[in-house]
Amino acid sequence: MRVLNQRAVLDRLRADGPATRPQIARQTGLSKPTVGQALLDLEQHGLVRAIGRTTAGPGRSAVVYEPNPAAGHVLGVDVGRQRIRAAVADLAGRVIARVDERNRCRSAPALVKAVAEVSSRAAAEAGLAPADLVVKVVGLPGVPDRRDGTLRHAPNVPGLERPGLLADLEDALGAELLVENDANLAAVGEQAQGAARGAEVFVCVSVGTGIGMGIVVDGRLFRGAHGAAGEIGYLPWSPGGGHVEAVAAAGSVVALAQEHGLVARSARDVFAAARSGDERALAAVRDEAGRLAFAVASVVAVIDPELVVLGGGIGRSADLLQEPLEAALRRLTPFAPKVVAGELGDGAVLSGAVAMGLRSARDLVFDRRG
Amino acid sequence: MRVLNQRAVLDRLRADGPATRPQIARQTGLSKPTVGQALLDLEQHGLVRAIGRTTAGPGRSAVVYEPNPAAGHVLGVDVGRQRIRAAVADLAGRVIARVDERNRCRSAPALVKAVAEVSSRAAAEAGLAPADLVVKVVGLPGVPDRRDGTLRHAPNVPGLERPGLLADLEDALGAELLVENDANLAAVGEQAQGAARGAEVFVCVSVGTGIGMGIVVDGRLFRGAHGAAGEIGYLPWSPGGGHVEAVAAAGSVVALAQEHGLVARSARDVFAAARSGDERALAAVRDEAGRLAFAVASVVAVIDPELVVLGGGIGRSADLLQEPLEAALRRLTPFAPKVVAGELGDGAVLSGAVAMGLRSARDLVFDRRG
Repeated sequence: MRVLNQRAVLDRLRADGPATRPQIARQTGLSKPTVGQALLDLEQHGLVRAIGRTTAGPGRSAVVYEPNPAAGHVLGVDVGRQRIRAAVADLAGRVIARVDERNRCRSAPALVKAVAEVSSRAAAEAGLAPADLVVKVVGLPGVPDRRDGTLRHAPNVPGLERPGLLADLEDALGAELLVENDANLAAVGEQAQGAARGAEVFVCVSVGTGIGMGIVVDGRLFRGAHGAAGEIGYLPWSPGGGHVEAVAAAGSVVALAQEHGLVARSARDVFAAARSGDERALAAVRDEAGRLAFAVASVVAVIDPELVVLGGGIGRSADLLQEPLEAALRRLTPFAPKVVAGELGDGAVLSGAVAMGLRSARDLVFDRRG
Repeated sequence: MRVLNQRAVLDRLRADGPATRPQIARQTGLSKPTVGQALLDLEQHGLVRAIGRTTAGPGRSAVVYEPNPAAGHVLGVDVGRQRIRAAVADLAGRVIARVDERNRCRSAPALVKAVAEVSSRAAAEAGLAPADLVVKVVGLPGVPDRRDGTLRHAPNVPGLERPGLLADLEDALGAELLVENDANLAAVGEQAQGAARGAEVFVCVSVGTGIGMGIVVDGRLFRGAHGAAGEIGYLPWSPGGGHVEAVAAAGSVVALAQEHGLVARSARDVFAAARSGDERALAAVRDEAGRLAFAVASVVAVIDPELVVLGGGIGRSADLLQEPLEAALRRLTPFAPKVVAGELGDGAVLSGAVAMGLRSARDLVFDRRG
């Protein structure tokens, strides 16, 4: 019972913010002495702390408690093709250190080393030892296969598909490591702090070098039977063959522009040209929107989301894509959902890594208290 | 506490089958007197019954209890384009009455009347009054919109899309009525008693006059944000337009056969011809398998199921379809799941309606005990 009461009091403080002993008693239905004992226990374990006393209003002043943000810290890492980013956050979710480096790795050992270094630097910047990081979450552009510790379907970053990569990462970063698909983390990030707050059934489509999608069902990440849910790069493009990734990822935007007579180095350049009114670029953007609409319409026919968030590099171009995409969607499906731009841009994966780490760490610090 | 103990004892009997007081005490961790009191209470409420005494083995003989199958009954109804089927089952899931009639209805009022008549006949055959039916579940080929009580996307049966249909059904059948998409119920049926027993993440694709799919995630039916999850008839067939339902439902099998020079009246005839070795029919079956593979590959890229069950009319032709479908799938996706024929055939929707009714009724009879 004593453990259950501690947990109830802590959960209440986490959900509703700082409160006094009588307030918590009212909220939980526990007696004031029971709440007082639980607060005492939690304070001794370093899980809650007193932050002051009430002053306003009648009656005696009371001590105000909050969950102790320093009771643990989490590390999030986003391994992208171009950059490796890391962030350390306290249990309140406040990011207290960030590291952002170019990814120059061309092999699995180099990548593991780079991730470990970036993580150590982030911990050091936060004034923490590696052991203070209760949970570490690493986002990778592939499908983690938890049976054999290998990352699959990860062609866009060299070395990622090497057997044993996940075990090597755990050796380098320590236990309590979660490895997650980056598009899944982007969905978690937009849910925690971005465009999908409060959404129960939504998808976050990330378009960049590759195409991926995170699915949230009943508020929780849905991974499918083998972790490959949302791998919409593999949506069949036509009955004859070919996949959506080959025709709708960032490289295709460049190819589409070329078909319309515009030579560009990157999708970003095509979108910039479209913004300045270049007709060839605008035509390429419309074509790309039509291709994305085909993918989104397929997703809609299968899982009927309430919301589609556009994330990744191409999410920044939602200003150009949204209208033609929604128009194409209405032609393709009677169930067209709302389509919005992600709010976290490039930071969605890292935000998701931290958010996923926090959910896990908040349980762990309680289980290990004392 | 007393209510919780009754519930624990009843749940144990339902999960593990008939047992004696000492056995239940061991299984639940409750004391023998507590179990005895709970059994007494449950017996008085008519929820459990004594079915005999142990005889074998040493020690005193003990009374054996089981959940009382007659504590309540459920009605399942499958409204198809051709037939209306109803079944009444007791709480043990034993079907004690069945009615199966041609559907000649051409309007919503006629349909509501026909469903009510078939239901009354099934209840009468079971020797029950309508009030004995604790829960009624009706499967319909459309998407129930619970906001306004209308069935949407139901073009294949006349009258189903009429505003207020669901309220009219409730007026005719009484309260505790659940209206569910028929493809969803087919999935629940195959999960409860057919090819998907024990599967956690699977889909059941039903192909007949239309195409639909039920999705089970973590063992539970997944309906999407607006009840339209699994409406794969609306999968885009090509970026230019068109939907899968128009090219892969039963009518297309006839059209495909005609393209190969075989005039047939129905998909069933085409499959029969293929079984007797007709090359034109076999070619049509291969084409159909390729089209279904396109739809299944799209589903796989989105939700990554462990198992695909082929149900509905075309499920009976899985002997012909399975091999070319799996071959086409392997060309279209790296995540090809196992594809199996449904085990319940035409009866899957009705089985699912009864199974869904039972889940709900088992709670209701406990909540209303006394």
